[in-house]
Amino acid sequence: VSKFIDLLKQSLVSKNSHVCVGLDSQYSKLPAFITKGRSVTEAIFSFNRAVIEQTHDLAVVYKMNVAFYAGFGAEGLEGLRETNEYLKANCPEIPLLADCKRSEMGESVKMVAGEIFDWLGFDCVMATPWFGFDTIRDYLSDESKGVVIYVHDSNPTAAEIQDLVLADGRQVYEEAARLVAQKWNKSGNLFVEAAATYPVALRKIRQIIGEEMPLLVAGVGAQGGQVKALSGLFGRDRQRLIVNSSRGIIFASLADNEQAYFDDVRTAVVRLRDELQTIAMT
Amino acid sequence: VSKFIDLLKQSLVSKNSHVCVGLDSQYSKLPAFITKGRSVTEAIFSFNRAVIEQTHDLAVVYKMNVAFYAGFGAEGLEGLRETNEYLKANCPEIPLLADCKRSEMGESVKMVAGEIFDWLGFDCVMATPWFGFDTIRDYLSDESKGVVIYVHDSNPTAAEIQDLVLADGRQVYEEAARLVAQKWNKSGNLFVEAAATYPVALRKIRQIIGEEMPLLVAGVGAQGGQVKALSGLFGRDRQRLIVNSSRGIIFASLADNEQAYFDDVRTAVVRLRDELQTIAMT
Repeated sequence: VSKFIDLLKQSLVSKNSHVCVGLDSQYSKLPAFITKGRSVTEAIFSFNRAVIEQTHDLAVVYKMNVAFYAGFGAEGLEGLRETNEYLKANCPEIPLLADCKRSEMGESVKMVAGEIFDWLGFDCVMATPWFGFDTIRDYLSDESKGVVIYVHDSNPTAAEIQDLVLADGRQVYEEAARLVAQKWNKSGNLFVEAAATYPVALRKIRQIIGEEMPLLVAGVGAQGGQVKALSGLFGRDRQRLIVNSSRGIIFASLADNEQAYFDDVRTAVVRLRDELQTIAMT
Repeated sequence: VSKFIDLLKQSLVSKNSHVCVGLDSQYSKLPAFITKGRSVTEAIFSFNRAVIEQTHDLAVVYKMNVAFYAGFGAEGLEGLRETNEYLKANCPEIPLLADCKRSEMGESVKMVAGEIFDWLGFDCVMATPWFGFDTIRDYLSDESKGVVIYVHDSNPTAAEIQDLVLADGRQVYEEAARLVAQKWNKSGNLFVEAAATYPVALRKIRQIIGEEMPLLVAGVGAQGGQVKALSGLFGRDRQRLIVNSSRGIIFASLADNEQAYFDDVRTAVVRLRDELQTIAMT
């Protein structure tokens, strides 16, 4: 598959799943049986490899928040790089999303591409709409890579800017969704993120972007978003919705041994996959 | 000085300058006499050290766009880390700003702090307002560090979201400025960025934030913003405005030898410093 958007859609179809596994593998939260006797890089990579072994047949996408690696400096980033290298070698069918909220433009977008795509090995970068099309334009020429725009985020204060009411009665996030779907997506490699914690906005965003564009949903689980809020939003053939869970999967277990811990991780993914399948069919 | 905001204000007073030197030292644009025979890390550090030697008595602030380093992977970031280490050892009076447009929250803000403050050695991080106060809150507890909010950016499409007109007739950037100045700045360590390329917005933002809060101006020089647009915006005692120039300083020269090149760099800073002093006094 040469186009990113085709890789993503094929993954949605072939996995028969809607789960995005968020590998936000903060070193300081890794279980003791992983960190003991290992360097930061080794511990991060070992943990991620074990999660991947238990989840790769169910994960449509892996999403990594780059901050959780960069927070531990060069060693943390090396753990991320090795994880992506492992994924590309063993699960090349799964798109890799960099959750990094970048908003660069021109020359500095080329730099982000160098960092996120070439060095760290991702297929897709996430960007805010705050700076407009200038921060998106330079990603359009390489259709093998994708960009997710944060149209509505899941956190409580996302409303402070994103929900402001415009002179024409719409809200700011609606204009952001319109810009992505109708103006910016010239190469077909853009899609959007919205939040289960704002179900009204989530529904409006699906209306604005239409049935074909993939929609990445944040805020399910730990943040309080309800899976049932997703009913009717799965898009064309019920194959255009991806639901992220991070802590709810990778830190789902309190077990103090490897076997039990990663069994719990798999159980958490299976449960979310099944819940989403049920809602998709309603 | 223990509080970031005092460090910044003292730098403005003691340097008798308004220049922020943007060390956006993209490796692939460094002159041949710097890169020849040096590793990526060594070349970046050597270039930056030479710029610093010629500018430290005139620079109120150094601002580095992290993307220009991360784009060259671990070696690029090591060049940035060594630069900041050198600056802290030799010019501890100059605040170091990370231009990185981060928008994390909660646990991941701690990670950004680990990356930007602890690992890379900055004093101040830059953040978008798109996600609201949740992405700012966790910076407030450490007053030795600062946060700059991108209230209005300099690029042409910044208007797509930031200039949208609200139901009450104001524009989105005005609400962002109000949130920073009246709601978010509980610890006094926030300030804002606005753009000389949007002179009307720039003037309104100064009105909204008042005379005391520092204002960082982007877009002067290569991007077309006029220094004369800054008249009357320098704030209390004409000591609350900082004007960034990056390419216009560090890539000001076409000289092919070290001596002439860095003389040109100094000349560019002196010229901008003098221009700003003249406008400040009108």
